[in-house]
Amino acid sequence: MIYITRREHFNAAHKLHNPNWSNEQNEEVFGKCANPNWHGHNYNLFVTVKGPVNPETGYSANLKEISTIIRKYITDKLDHKNLNLDVDFLQGMMPSTENVAIAIWQQLTPHILALGIKLHCVKLYETENNYVEYFGE
Amino acid sequence: MIYITRREHFNAAHKLHNPNWSNEQNEEVFGKCANPNWHGHNYNLFVTVKGPVNPETGYSANLKEISTIIRKYITDKLDHKNLNLDVDFLQGMMPSTENVAIAIWQQLTPHILALGIKLHCVKLYETENNYVEYFGE
Amino acid sequence: MIYITRREHFNAAHKLHNPNWSNEQNEEVFGKCANPNWHGHNYNLFVTVKGPVNPETGYSANLKEISTIIRKYITDKLDHKNLNLDVDFLQGMMPSTENVAIAIWQQLTPHILALGIKLHCVKLYETENNYVEYFGE
Amino acid sequence: MIYITRREHFNAAHKLHNPNWSNEQNEEVFGKCANPNWHGHNYNLFVTVKGPVNPETGYSANLKEISTIIRKYITDKLDHKNLNLDVDFLQGMMPSTENVAIAIWQQLTPHILALGIKLHCVKLYETENNYVEYFGE
Amino acid sequence: MIYITRREHFNAAHKLHNPNWSNEQNEEVFGKCANPNWHGHNYNLFVTVKGPVNPETGYSANLKEISTIIRKYITDKLDHKNLNLDVDFLQGMMPSTENVAIAIWQQLTPHILALGIKLHCVKLYETENNYVEYFGE
Amino acid sequence: MIYITRREHFNAAHKLHNPNWSNEQNEEVFGKCANPNWHGHNYNLFVTVKGPVNPETGYSANLKEISTIIRKYITDKLDHKNLNLDVDFLQGMMPSTENVAIAIWQQLTPHILALGIKLHCVKLYETENNYVEYFGE
Repeated sequence: MIYITRREHFNAAHKLHNPNWSNEQNEEVFGKCANPNWHGHNYNLFVTVKGPVNPETGYSANLKEISTIIRKYITDKLDHKNLNLDVDFLQGMMPSTENVAIAIWQQLTPHILALGIKLHCVKLYETENNYVEYFGE
Repeated sequence: MIYITRREHFNAAHKLHNPNWSNEQNEEVFGKCANPNWHGHNYNLFVTVKGPVNPETGYSANLKEISTIIRKYITDKLDHKNLNLDVDFLQGMMPSTENVAIAIWQQLTPHILALGIKLHCVKLYETENNYVEYFGE
Repeated sequence: MIYITRREHFNAAHKLHNPNWSNEQNEEVFGKCANPNWHGHNYNLFVTVKGPVNPETGYSANLKEISTIIRKYITDKLDHKNLNLDVDFLQGMMPSTENVAIAIWQQLTPHILALGIKLHCVKLYETENNYVEYFGE
Repeated sequence: MIYITRREHFNAAHKLHNPNWSNEQNEEVFGKCANPNWHGHNYNLFVTVKGPVNPETGYSANLKEISTIIRKYITDKLDHKNLNLDVDFLQGMMPSTENVAIAIWQQLTPHILALGIKLHCVKLYETENNYVEYFGE
Repeated sequence: MIYITRREHFNAAHKLHNPNWSNEQNEEVFGKCANPNWHGHNYNLFVTVKGPVNPETGYSANLKEISTIIRKYITDKLDHKNLNLDVDFLQGMMPSTENVAIAIWQQLTPHILALGIKLHCVKLYETENNYVEYFGE
Repeated sequence: MIYITRREHFNAAHKLHNPNWSNEQNEEVFGKCANPNWHGHNYNLFVTVKGPVNPETGYSANLKEISTIIRKYITDKLDHKNLNLDVDFLQGMMPSTENVAIAIWQQLTPHILALGIKLHCVKLYETENNYVEYFGE
């Protein structure tokens, strides 16, 4: 069993705002992240899959296929987009780094499983100082 | 004469859109950067000043003062903001990396000169693959 | 359950020296790290906490609170200090990267638990080539 | 129990080519990596060992010893070499990142065990976008 | 006048070998870089162009066009290739970092000039510790 | 004429303290950097030399020779040392980043000139946020 990781990235706008709360409560909890006119980030996404090594290829997974899946189902939908408004699989969700990472996990899972391997981790950097990791449970 | 550089950063939303153009023309020139609902970046800003070394301090400039100036006049106004909508010194301007760097230069110049040193370069990274440098002329 | 990590940093002096040993033995074991007049590092500290996502905020933890705790109890005490001489919670301890990471874990634990989440990992880089990780057991 | 990691690196040439396949099949599976005249990478190798902290030294492992072992048994044999042709412990093996990482694990294990500690992970970056991790099972 | 830089990269094999010299002389001058079976690198290429800012676009250069030129004329020809054997514009040349950077400059110049701007610098990293810069004279 | 740069590094302790001033004045000017018990940094040093390319080697300078010179005359004297106390060529000098960079320039100049090339720039990072550049005038 070996773990293999592919980095992709996307640049997106978002804000953190709970519509059930007053502006004051939003600012108190989310601070600058609640700016009504949005802000944005260069997100770095690391997707780790695991599986045995195929003796004919030396690959546990073909990273070109992994990259193609991530781009088709994730970064093409997120890159240069507004995470609150533009993304089908984030509708109605607070686009915190945590929630975006979990949503990416859910989007990727069937496509990774279809390759005969398992998704191990979605790691998402919002800045060089902040990142989350989700292992599916 | 020695050159000293301070890095600061800000996370902001923007879009590139010329209001005199059709949507098609905007998309043709600006591509994904024209997304109407914005996108964003983690900007890295490197400010270089130059001057002689003060023999009593060993400093050409006190980087705490440089940092304070950059934060007060630049990053406090740009961080977690929308570069098209929220920033006084960017009003009416296409917030391309080039224009933002030039505007930062113009904002910083009087405050750096007031320290008795000169502004040498504003270097602004939009992503790890793209950056601009402005030397004031 | 999601894992969220915050990076903070501190710049400090230290030396590795066992007072029960001769100078020769110290130099043999610790090499350049035993220099009597100290040396120093830019330490990078990554603190990982884990918990469920709060549906109202999308947060497993408020990183501003995590950052405030790390700064108050750890980096304000370590930054621009001598790890052998100046730090209350490192008294009488060999300030190896291993021991500093374990001590940081012990200092942080009650404050992280008070937020209703768990401390998962303290990762401490001494240089870009060397780091330790401590998981509390 | 604490985990400590040492980074080393090597620059090497390789190609991915299964001699039992036609050129077309090699190109279909391995793409550009099948170029007959080789290509190459700056590999970054992170070796993680684990063990208790020795109270006399504050070390779980002496990183100078770990570094010496990695250089003697691994990077001196891989650096500025051709991974398909020049390396005794890679003979007859497809030099994918997966296989190289597993082979490094096997080479390092007895030498790390001889120090009284355990090898935990071999992490090998082929590029800044691709890496594998092997934990020995 | 503003300077704008685009990073691209390529992974390639090469060796340094002067055919007019004995093997001993090649090894003495080029050391490990003379390995007959090649070695390789992840090269990072930074191309800087300069020009005035177009008031309609805020661009001094459209980085998509710059990127397309670099990929078409440079990195598509160098990536996953052997710099001694596979590249038309490097034929008969010692593929040192210096010579590769100069050759890239010569290849890029007419295509950059055709955009109405000037090529300012080709900066080529062979490793994170070594890079060259060429300014055309 | 081509510019070639070599990175080396050293880890050192220092403090900023003017013995002609009161403790209060030192703290006011130098802040945390005046801590009497020292602090320290991982310094990154980039040395740039310039010269024509030798057609027989493709080199403007042999980076192994450059590296050997930097290690012998600079980093072997600075690494794991106290910049205020332990370094012959820094005696009596405030070890600010500016002064250390200028002193490195003066130490390196005759040895680089002896290779038939010129020293162009000494760039010294104290942290990832602060660096100085000295061009010899």
